[in-house]
Amino acid sequence: MNLTHPFLDDDGDKLREECGVFGAINASDASTVTALGLHALQHRGQEAAGISSFDGNSFFTVRGIGHVAENFSTAEALSQLPGFMAAGHVRYSTTGGSGLRNIQPLYADLASGGFAVAHNGNISNAQTLRDDLVRRGAIFQSTSDTEVIIHLVATSRYPSMIERLIDALRLVEGAYSLIVMTPEGMIACRDPLGIRPLVMGKMGDNILFASESVAFDVTGAEFVRQVEPGEMIHVDFDGEIKSIRPFGDHPARPCIFEHVYFSRPDSIFDGRSVYSARKAIGEQLAIESPCDVDLVVPVPDSGVPAAIGYAQQSGIPFELGIIRSHYVGRTFIQPSDGARHSGVRRKHNANRGLVEGKRIVLIDDSIVRGTTSMKIVEMMRDAGASEVHFRVASPPTAHSCFYGVDTPERSKLLAARMDVEPMRSFIKADSLAFVSIDGLYRAVGEKPRNSACPQYCDACFTGDYPTPLTDLNARDQEDAQLSFDKVSV
Amino acid sequence: MNLTHPFLDDDGDKLREECGVFGAINASDASTVTALGLHALQHRGQEAAGISSFDGNSFFTVRGIGHVAENFSTAEALSQLPGFMAAGHVRYSTTGGSGLRNIQPLYADLASGGFAVAHNGNISNAQTLRDDLVRRGAIFQSTSDTEVIIHLVATSRYPSMIERLIDALRLVEGAYSLIVMTPEGMIACRDPLGIRPLVMGKMGDNILFASESVAFDVTGAEFVRQVEPGEMIHVDFDGEIKSIRPFGDHPARPCIFEHVYFSRPDSIFDGRSVYSARKAIGEQLAIESPCDVDLVVPVPDSGVPAAIGYAQQSGIPFELGIIRSHYVGRTFIQPSDGARHSGVRRKHNANRGLVEGKRIVLIDDSIVRGTTSMKIVEMMRDAGASEVHFRVASPPTAHSCFYGVDTPERSKLLAARMDVEPMRSFIKADSLAFVSIDGLYRAVGEKPRNSACPQYCDACFTGDYPTPLTDLNARDQEDAQLSFDKVSV
Amino acid sequence: MNLTHPFLDDDGDKLREECGVFGAINASDASTVTALGLHALQHRGQEAAGISSFDGNSFFTVRGIGHVAENFSTAEALSQLPGFMAAGHVRYSTTGGSGLRNIQPLYADLASGGFAVAHNGNISNAQTLRDDLVRRGAIFQSTSDTEVIIHLVATSRYPSMIERLIDALRLVEGAYSLIVMTPEGMIACRDPLGIRPLVMGKMGDNILFASESVAFDVTGAEFVRQVEPGEMIHVDFDGEIKSIRPFGDHPARPCIFEHVYFSRPDSIFDGRSVYSARKAIGEQLAIESPCDVDLVVPVPDSGVPAAIGYAQQSGIPFELGIIRSHYVGRTFIQPSDGARHSGVRRKHNANRGLVEGKRIVLIDDSIVRGTTSMKIVEMMRDAGASEVHFRVASPPTAHSCFYGVDTPERSKLLAARMDVEPMRSFIKADSLAFVSIDGLYRAVGEKPRNSACPQYCDACFTGDYPTPLTDLNARDQEDAQLSFDKVSV
Amino acid sequence: MNLTHPFLDDDGDKLREECGVFGAINASDASTVTALGLHALQHRGQEAAGISSFDGNSFFTVRGIGHVAENFSTAEALSQLPGFMAAGHVRYSTTGGSGLRNIQPLYADLASGGFAVAHNGNISNAQTLRDDLVRRGAIFQSTSDTEVIIHLVATSRYPSMIERLIDALRLVEGAYSLIVMTPEGMIACRDPLGIRPLVMGKMGDNILFASESVAFDVTGAEFVRQVEPGEMIHVDFDGEIKSIRPFGDHPARPCIFEHVYFSRPDSIFDGRSVYSARKAIGEQLAIESPCDVDLVVPVPDSGVPAAIGYAQQSGIPFELGIIRSHYVGRTFIQPSDGARHSGVRRKHNANRGLVEGKRIVLIDDSIVRGTTSMKIVEMMRDAGASEVHFRVASPPTAHSCFYGVDTPERSKLLAARMDVEPMRSFIKADSLAFVSIDGLYRAVGEKPRNSACPQYCDACFTGDYPTPLTDLNARDQEDAQLSFDKVSV
Repeated sequence: MNLTHPFLDDDGDKLREECGVFGAINASDASTVTALGLHALQHRGQEAAGISSFDGNSFFTVRGIGHVAENFSTAEALSQLPGFMAAGHVRYSTTGGSGLRNIQPLYADLASGGFAVAHNGNISNAQTLRDDLVRRGAIFQSTSDTEVIIHLVATSRYPSMIERLIDALRLVEGAYSLIVMTPEGMIACRDPLGIRPLVMGKMGDNILFASESVAFDVTGAEFVRQVEPGEMIHVDFDGEIKSIRPFGDHPARPCIFEHVYFSRPDSIFDGRSVYSARKAIGEQLAIESPCDVDLVVPVPDSGVPAAIGYAQQSGIPFELGIIRSHYVGRTFIQPSDGARHSGVRRKHNANRGLVEGKRIVLIDDSIVRGTTSMKIVEMMRDAGASEVHFRVASPPTAHSCFYGVDTPERSKLLAARMDVEPMRSFIKADSLAFVSIDGLYRAVGEKPRNSACPQYCDACFTGDYPTPLTDLNARDQEDAQLSFDKVSV
Repeated sequence: MNLTHPFLDDDGDKLREECGVFGAINASDASTVTALGLHALQHRGQEAAGISSFDGNSFFTVRGIGHVAENFSTAEALSQLPGFMAAGHVRYSTTGGSGLRNIQPLYADLASGGFAVAHNGNISNAQTLRDDLVRRGAIFQSTSDTEVIIHLVATSRYPSMIERLIDALRLVEGAYSLIVMTPEGMIACRDPLGIRPLVMGKMGDNILFASESVAFDVTGAEFVRQVEPGEMIHVDFDGEIKSIRPFGDHPARPCIFEHVYFSRPDSIFDGRSVYSARKAIGEQLAIESPCDVDLVVPVPDSGVPAAIGYAQQSGIPFELGIIRSHYVGRTFIQPSDGARHSGVRRKHNANRGLVEGKRIVLIDDSIVRGTTSMKIVEMMRDAGASEVHFRVASPPTAHSCFYGVDTPERSKLLAARMDVEPMRSFIKADSLAFVSIDGLYRAVGEKPRNSACPQYCDACFTGDYPTPLTDLNARDQEDAQLSFDKVSV
Repeated sequence: MNLTHPFLDDDGDKLREECGVFGAINASDASTVTALGLHALQHRGQEAAGISSFDGNSFFTVRGIGHVAENFSTAEALSQLPGFMAAGHVRYSTTGGSGLRNIQPLYADLASGGFAVAHNGNISNAQTLRDDLVRRGAIFQSTSDTEVIIHLVATSRYPSMIERLIDALRLVEGAYSLIVMTPEGMIACRDPLGIRPLVMGKMGDNILFASESVAFDVTGAEFVRQVEPGEMIHVDFDGEIKSIRPFGDHPARPCIFEHVYFSRPDSIFDGRSVYSARKAIGEQLAIESPCDVDLVVPVPDSGVPAAIGYAQQSGIPFELGIIRSHYVGRTFIQPSDGARHSGVRRKHNANRGLVEGKRIVLIDDSIVRGTTSMKIVEMMRDAGASEVHFRVASPPTAHSCFYGVDTPERSKLLAARMDVEPMRSFIKADSLAFVSIDGLYRAVGEKPRNSACPQYCDACFTGDYPTPLTDLNARDQEDAQLSFDKVSV
Repeated sequence: MNLTHPFLDDDGDKLREECGVFGAINASDASTVTALGLHALQHRGQEAAGISSFDGNSFFTVRGIGHVAENFSTAEALSQLPGFMAAGHVRYSTTGGSGLRNIQPLYADLASGGFAVAHNGNISNAQTLRDDLVRRGAIFQSTSDTEVIIHLVATSRYPSMIERLIDALRLVEGAYSLIVMTPEGMIACRDPLGIRPLVMGKMGDNILFASESVAFDVTGAEFVRQVEPGEMIHVDFDGEIKSIRPFGDHPARPCIFEHVYFSRPDSIFDGRSVYSARKAIGEQLAIESPCDVDLVVPVPDSGVPAAIGYAQQSGIPFELGIIRSHYVGRTFIQPSDGARHSGVRRKHNANRGLVEGKRIVLIDDSIVRGTTSMKIVEMMRDAGASEVHFRVASPPTAHSCFYGVDTPERSKLLAARMDVEPMRSFIKADSLAFVSIDGLYRAVGEKPRNSACPQYCDACFTGDYPTPLTDLNARDQEDAQLSFDKVSV
């Protein structure tokens, strides 16, 4: 079943994880392993991919627009990436030719040697740091926030590479899971709050790092443990592994949306199966917001695990009332006398024979702009459903993310503009309910949310950002704080 | 949910429908509608696509390697296909540049005017007819069996185009669902046995034809009825629709594998919802071959509807024990020290947290070569499943198809080589069962198979071919009749 | 020096030879030799190229838009063309993707075996023959006149391939130099008047045919003789060479424009060095139309040999007053405040230091539309030339060619619209003169033109067409005979 | 005539100018003018091209592999380069995708604003400067020597951009003709010795700079004057032009090889027509080294002007004994039984009818490796020439250039390995002579070479380098000073 959500977000109606990272050291075909690992992380970033490798003498980098398979599946491509250490990156948000500059890993020749970095996250004071560096004569190659880290390392006065990196990161705010390569080895590192995921794996003598554990399954490696929030792990070419915690102790705040949507269901995130978490959210939703219907219908594919949970908890049959096509990459020209919504129908089609005359509940993972939800409800009614209820496996998404997730600007978020009842009216469902924030915490195995010190970063639901947003405050604080008066229809 | 099975057959372990056809007449944007319709039929042929159109004066044709979306989604591409009548085709089996010649619709300027044809099926006496035509001075442009029809029409002595077409088809044996365009209108036609599907739809004054009804959903048209076996429907530019039956009456023999695997689950085939048929097969299988397990796990995506049926009938929970990736188009170079079966894992990954320590039954639609089944069973055991049973939603596939389906040669079909128990041993399952042939007939709404006059073409299961196989008998009858001694281990 | 005139005709101000052909038999790398030979004929057709080969069992064909070097310079491309016999073709006049069908060699599987043909020339009753063939059920693949020959061969009742070809060619009118490949060997053949050139060469046991002898120089072969007008030469795989003359005896009429412009100066045409002929025309021109100037300046590159002749005969220094750029393939966007004529200046630039204050005579090979001539005269005046005279190394081009040369329609030919004095005024030269028709004949080594039975085809100068123009007469004779009243200003 | 020498150097047997630069300010279509100007400089660098523009707010850059016409001829391409100031660059020596980084103009966002630079020349202490900058934390984007200038500007402490640039250039050794764009205007600048050329033009209010004056002809601008050695010209957006000379006074040393080969013959270099200079070298050569022959034959195209001079001075006829093809971009696979030297024959072919039985003198501009000269002599003998003499329009090229010209390593230079007589024997000519160094100076209008203070840089002939070669001395001085014992055969 396709739970790796690639194409649905054409119309920007899903949040999009912006990056995935993978690294391998002491592997005889490091870049080959990295290509496979990145491929398993493709759902975290589909617009561009890059791999850097090190063969003991030189660093090599290949970058390309498009999928990992398009750029890194052939022996020819991989022959340009020799060596026993490699790191790679998949990303969104890169368009056009010149955008090649922003594809990671970023690389620089420093006085102390080569330095390559792959970064998942977002540095929320990058502009402020950049302005200062440029004032001192630094010349930036990209518009990527990640490049700030490299310049901070390049200009640090500390003697060793690891001290320079720590020196640099002390200045940095925000979310970062990093894989760094130097001539001495590989450094994997997660910001003090551990907002974005990073895990460690092992295959014989190879040590691997990845955004998600699923990358280890595909490469045949075994999952060891997560890199802890605030932890920096250094692996050298003799296989020695050192862990340090240069930033002191902080309570962690990993991103709860990884459980809701970003991670693949076959990954382990924060010690728990993502598939189980999603089913548990569906069960919780069935308890909180039951529904008297004939069929439980998932919005494919991301709503499927929660729908199975909802169906099992409620005893109502799980059925594929919507069929999803594989072939949805592009927008088609529409005929002038064509059907309503043939765009959404190219992706999702009602299984009319099944839903005709039935009361159904649709289960989706989240509502962002609401436009797709509205079209799907309408499509089910057109197919003859007598009642169409809607249940959402996350709380209302009402705030932008500044930690490496591509969210629409706040004014486009349906939940930022209106309360639940007007939302129901907007998508034209017979009823609408979201799982509660405490229900969500419970489903992922936690106690109810501790509002003094929340166990997760849930800023997209609550607006409670765990770090200062320096750049934002400097430049357009006003915009972000625009109060969207809730609409009551 | 992705039930449109696109990528799984990389290793040739699925049968492949070879074509889909679509036509539209009296539509203001005929080629635009046709592009959308073909896109909905993409699962029937993914290697090449073509569209021809007619604007009252001239015929236009554009062909391309690849998907419909790659070739026909832009206004620029469609501007080369003006007019109010269009027909299109998707196909497998075309490789390399020169293969463009074989991409349909085929077109010829005949003395009586332009003639374009899109064909789903296979003419089983094409070579015999072709040899005779070449002897009379005909020059063939392609290696396609379909071109025989054009030359027969070109050299027919009958005065009208429809009489010439009937004259030509009387010489033709095998399976054909045709959409023909002439300067007088569109002709849709199905061979006397109706082996391959063809349906008629309507949108305002437009009349549409398609291989499957799902193409009407996507274009916003309504399903009218199927084109009957042996029926020829002519639609002219005034909207007049004439139906004739030039070949007399025969009992129909539509392809039962359309229900098993080829058609999309949201299509109506032979008057019945394909999704319902598949669920019913799963239910039948649960009755015939029950299993004492903890979880029902579909082999995604084609096994999902039958698995839902099996789960509902048996009361055992339906769970996603295998996660399927979207990103599986290419084969990757494998690392030398890589995992077993990382190829299959790029497509399917075990949901380890779910299956560990559980007894499971896997549900798949069919077994062709058996190699994928074997790897999936092994993957489930590696993930900790304590028992792995296998149930198949069709009888053993033991014979090749000569009616437009790409089957491996007979010696590669697992069921042609061995009985069920050695098959079980080959795929290393704890138990293996197939639905019975009568159970299959029952599930699709028929009485048990009438062996004197079967209600469907089921030659791939039974070897009972409904037409003579002239070319095969002429050339390599021996090969086809090679008796594969069943292996008993 | 670049006398192979490739790019100048962007603005259609040169006549363009439409094709070149090359063939090789009994050569161990036949297609490799053919690629080199075609490359040497690139000036005869630059829009598309194709090669077919035969390995004793099968025929292979590769075609491509663009130059020979782009399509046939690599081992990879040539590996698709195995065998010891090959023939190739370069052509103008093919645009767009579907045009691939018109790229030669054309190939067909006839009942008697494969048949490939490369054709230089034009069949002037092709449409009439085609209409008749289509009426009998023939299906054409291309819009090329050459395909008529294949269908005539396919439907001929004669037993052997060579008899069928003769049978076919007896029906054909116009100009043709053909290279045909069959499973028995290679046939080279020239129409009874020998309008287009064709020569035979030899390299060890290899027998080669080509449009021009220069192709033998490049491949390292030696020139043997020309294929005579009306001669058909058959070479088999044992190396036996037979010559027959199936069309009886006719006085020949080779194209005199090959001497003026089409052929490369290092070719031998009709027994005479093309370079010497061009120099002799320049000398004749200096005798007929002397000029009191300081410098003789060629319009590069095609005017260079005649300018050398003119300079040597007159004793006036030959100087490069115009510099030609290599890099002229495309039209550039012009700046809104740009110079006059920067288009022509990208190709030709005045050598200002040289011509400033000087009286010059420009020498060009021909005047077609006159637009380029006008711009060049103006450019020389802008550069300070005090007098600009113009001498043309051919008579006025006043009639279209129907024998395989791309001429503008007659109304665009400057000499069809006006006499010499208004032409002078149009191009703004101080004086203008053309070589006389008898002077031209004399320069190429003949007696003055025998008007009862001219020694050359010179229809573009005289309007005296040596064959009936059946298609033209059938369809639009009127247009062709439109009398353009000479303009007298 | 093609005197712009593009393709001949496939086999590395010509020196290659490495760059051309062009800039336009206060032009309404600055990038369009720049594209045309660069196109006219295409012979100075054919592997890559780039243009940057400024619209008052932002800088834009487009770079591409290949010719100017391929990258910058369309409105679409130029629409990405808006604004009234633009500068462009053509270059050799860039291969592969990542090489895009080295294509100029280079651009950086400095604290003081955008800074773009196009550079013709070579900085001979670049590596030394670079090492120092990296030690201070600078991160380089390219491997280009030019980037050193940007980092020196970025880290300069002077307040204004022009002072920073002067501060930077004071540290730089070698050859540079620069066009710099800043938000305040355009700066054109030539190194104190003026080794590489740079000229200023004008079109209405537009001020233009270019490597050669021919670029002004094509754009329709008028030539104003050269930028003087050591001069820095600043043009602002009000049209104010300031000239400063920040480096004091030095005797100039412009590159004499611009006259011999690099510049187009229709350019003005150092105040003298390049065509006239070349003819004068030919005349000088006829005086110094006469020859009793029948024909003067240029090696096309670069030998043509000198051959005209030689012919006029000696009274021996100038004839095209070698015909050069236009279509020579690629190397072809050679047939196994092919001719000797078919590679060279694809480019140059003997005009056999002319040279057979004649005594000839070949005139070429220079001899680098000698391999092409040898093949051409042999080709003339194969064509029947009874004597083949060789005269060269420059002194022996015996030393590498370190000022922006791509020379083979010294051991590959024929004149570094042997004296004239063994060279004659190597190329198998009947006699061989080079113009003398004093003859060359005289031909370009100077007194004989002043060895105390030479009027030109002629290091490639004399080994007398006008600047220190810091990097070379630091790293591999030994190699450069390897004494090649002259070979006496």
